[in-house]
Amino acid sequence: MPNALDQACYQLALANRIVAHEGVLDGFGHISIRHPDDPARYLLSRSRSPELVKPSDILEFSLDSKLLTPSSELPYGECVIHGCIYQLRPDVNAVCHHHSMAILPFCVTGVALRPLIGLGATMGGAVPFWDSRDEFGDTPMVVTTPEQGLSLARALGANAMVLMRRHGATVVGATLQETVFRSIFSHRNAELQLRAQALGEIAPLTQGEAALAESYSLRVRPMGRAWEYWTTRLAKAGELPPHEPVVAG
Amino acid sequence: MPNALDQACYQLALANRIVAHEGVLDGFGHISIRHPDDPARYLLSRSRSPELVKPSDILEFSLDSKLLTPSSELPYGECVIHGCIYQLRPDVNAVCHHHSMAILPFCVTGVALRPLIGLGATMGGAVPFWDSRDEFGDTPMVVTTPEQGLSLARALGANAMVLMRRHGATVVGATLQETVFRSIFSHRNAELQLRAQALGEIAPLTQGEAALAESYSLRVRPMGRAWEYWTTRLAKAGELPPHEPVVAG
Amino acid sequence: MPNALDQACYQLALANRIVAHEGVLDGFGHISIRHPDDPARYLLSRSRSPELVKPSDILEFSLDSKLLTPSSELPYGECVIHGCIYQLRPDVNAVCHHHSMAILPFCVTGVALRPLIGLGATMGGAVPFWDSRDEFGDTPMVVTTPEQGLSLARALGANAMVLMRRHGATVVGATLQETVFRSIFSHRNAELQLRAQALGEIAPLTQGEAALAESYSLRVRPMGRAWEYWTTRLAKAGELPPHEPVVAG
Amino acid sequence: MPNALDQACYQLALANRIVAHEGVLDGFGHISIRHPDDPARYLLSRSRSPELVKPSDILEFSLDSKLLTPSSELPYGECVIHGCIYQLRPDVNAVCHHHSMAILPFCVTGVALRPLIGLGATMGGAVPFWDSRDEFGDTPMVVTTPEQGLSLARALGANAMVLMRRHGATVVGATLQETVFRSIFSHRNAELQLRAQALGEIAPLTQGEAALAESYSLRVRPMGRAWEYWTTRLAKAGELPPHEPVVAG
Repeated sequence: MPNALDQACYQLALANRIVAHEGVLDGFGHISIRHPDDPARYLLSRSRSPELVKPSDILEFSLDSKLLTPSSELPYGECVIHGCIYQLRPDVNAVCHHHSMAILPFCVTGVALRPLIGLGATMGGAVPFWDSRDEFGDTPMVVTTPEQGLSLARALGANAMVLMRRHGATVVGATLQETVFRSIFSHRNAELQLRAQALGEIAPLTQGEAALAESYSLRVRPMGRAWEYWTTRLAKAGELPPHEPVVAG
Repeated sequence: MPNALDQACYQLALANRIVAHEGVLDGFGHISIRHPDDPARYLLSRSRSPELVKPSDILEFSLDSKLLTPSSELPYGECVIHGCIYQLRPDVNAVCHHHSMAILPFCVTGVALRPLIGLGATMGGAVPFWDSRDEFGDTPMVVTTPEQGLSLARALGANAMVLMRRHGATVVGATLQETVFRSIFSHRNAELQLRAQALGEIAPLTQGEAALAESYSLRVRPMGRAWEYWTTRLAKAGELPPHEPVVAG
Repeated sequence: MPNALDQACYQLALANRIVAHEGVLDGFGHISIRHPDDPARYLLSRSRSPELVKPSDILEFSLDSKLLTPSSELPYGECVIHGCIYQLRPDVNAVCHHHSMAILPFCVTGVALRPLIGLGATMGGAVPFWDSRDEFGDTPMVVTTPEQGLSLARALGANAMVLMRRHGATVVGATLQETVFRSIFSHRNAELQLRAQALGEIAPLTQGEAALAESYSLRVRPMGRAWEYWTTRLAKAGELPPHEPVVAG
Repeated sequence: MPNALDQACYQLALANRIVAHEGVLDGFGHISIRHPDDPARYLLSRSRSPELVKPSDILEFSLDSKLLTPSSELPYGECVIHGCIYQLRPDVNAVCHHHSMAILPFCVTGVALRPLIGLGATMGGAVPFWDSRDEFGDTPMVVTTPEQGLSLARALGANAMVLMRRHGATVVGATLQETVFRSIFSHRNAELQLRAQALGEIAPLTQGEAALAESYSLRVRPMGRAWEYWTTRLAKAGELPPHEPVVAG
């Protein structure tokens, strides 16, 4: 009978594959969850592409991103993104870092993301920018030190998502499903904004519409309906993760 | 030997999958038909993504969107869109509500859709806009009350399609095939308009051309040819709905 | 042992599927060839979507587009496009009529197609426009009468391709392979022109470069290499036409 | 037990298929490697589309592009691109020539490619242009003579990539993996630049960021992670090259 950790590792592998299959993650990027039994730890795959992640790839980390699982596997170079956010945001239980081709044009130009439709409002009322150059000058454009991770987490603040200039985005949520839902629909809202701004002047949701739509969209029913849809698409493509013993813990 | 209701449920599941497979519907949106034996009822899937709909998912509703099928399944939150249109439009026998990425830029900017090619003229001579904000102020950007549904149906008027600001589109037709044909080709005309307006100044069909082309395109032969094409593509992808007992009725 | 007509029907079905698989043809549009044994006749499928065409769908027509094959199948409504071009252009042995999403923006705006790369130069030195409105006023935007077909054929003149305002394109060649090659690479050149004009000012090939590149590209080796590529892609997708008795003749 | 040449031919076939599968190469274009045992020779497929290349298609050439393998197969018309670069750049061991739809808009307009994200910085600090017209006037827009090949190699200079006006791009690297990685991520950076410039004013990496990011990205770990990803995607599509005896040598 699967325990909480087994289930968490399977769901995390599944989430990695869903977000890749829906075009948000590609060869790089990653999703983590807070450990189901210990809020002072988190779970994240070893360094490999999200659409390949299996339950047995999941490793366990402390919130200062020390690897706790005895393993010779390499973690992602940017695991501090996850650890630092879990430190500063006790309400967050899942983090997705990605470089989607719909979001990146905003990271590269500094144009603000705006909620244009109800599902897009799940990105939250405001999406702040973080620029590694401000505090750290020239870097290899990766977030690898605790100082960088904490700077990013502070820029995220109480929001649901932060855009990283010339780099990508980091998305958070109270649950894994919420982080996946937000990652996919903020990506689609960005794709829509690119198309709409090429056509004419956009008229976004009002603040009131955005707040109501975010609450409406993040209920169990629409999130469950989307999860069934994405999982079925993954299954039809033969891409579900295997059921196998986990190594984390 | 299948009766009219069995056939209608199968065709409705098929239509949901066709319109999803051709890229107009995604995880959300839905298609309904008027009941083949009783014009005071309509048929619509339980709440699930269109490309997953099976004949056994189809439920029966009164025109004031009361669920008539004994079932514990949840209907779509927006089923009033369908009921209200069937109330005000006795000539309409099928309704599609969607949020296609080609149509949404027009909903977000207020730029008018224009018929650019013969098949695109199936959208009708004019496509009105409806804005929930005008009568209802800030909402979660969904149509869930009879008042909202009737307001939308009035905005649709005698037309074939209505654009919903910051939300999506609703398309109607005399038959299921006509609604599917119109949903797909108005989507493609919108995609063309996005591309053409990025290139230069568009020169749409004249009113006379549009009227002649709409009549020509909505004949049995081109609609049947397209239906064979879409059904074969769905079959090749292994996505035809299963044949199974229906529960509606 | 297959005779010339059997082989021609198979190759024509294959060509329909290749041009559809490469994204130029969709549910509508068609390709014909001149009859291998009688230049006063041509071969064209019955009315169905190009990616579904089989050898047994091919019908035989006189150059005034009378159906010669005893058959109850319906021909395409626009078969006169083919017949009229074969009448006026004895050098032409294959015709493709399509509505590709890369070419249509030019038909809708009147912006001229320009050869931007060597393979795109196969569209020829100039691509004229034809507008049904000029001679025929408001029409359903289809070419169905001999007068319309001859008007289009005159607009094509000695060129390799003609753009039809608010409608699509018609492409011709000395052989079926040449018409296929030209249809696909003019489509790709158009896609490139859309992308390039959105980025900056385009600098097309000189007339001398275009003429040299057209001759170079239409040799046996590059056309054969592309044909092998397209046929293999079709085979891998399980979409090759079946080998079966033909009915034409 | 496979020797170095067998392995090199297999890896080269694999690389051709990866770069095609990721959308950079299409029916035309090619990748070569320097011979593993003799720096005065290089390996390149016979003339066929990259996604079809098998180990037994690989031929051996001298650096002045004389075919050394006894074979009746035709080499690519543009093999001098490879030979001339290997002559002038002893540090280069793999060359990719392509015409990607993301890179071509820059070749057609003369707009400069700029590194926008870390992985895109693998294109190098500067990407020069080469125009065949400058030295050779009107040509068929192919590089087929030693003079043209050397002119292109001189324009490449010490850089990692050169854009060919109205033609395509040529990318080099110290290893096959590096050339593949650079070809794919410079293509993606170009796609991003197209999208970003349509949205607003781009803010590229600083020179310092680009240099640091290039070094960081071209380490063994990220290149290996991407290679596993691309190979797995190819395997899932059933497109890995067959294991078979090679003919080169």
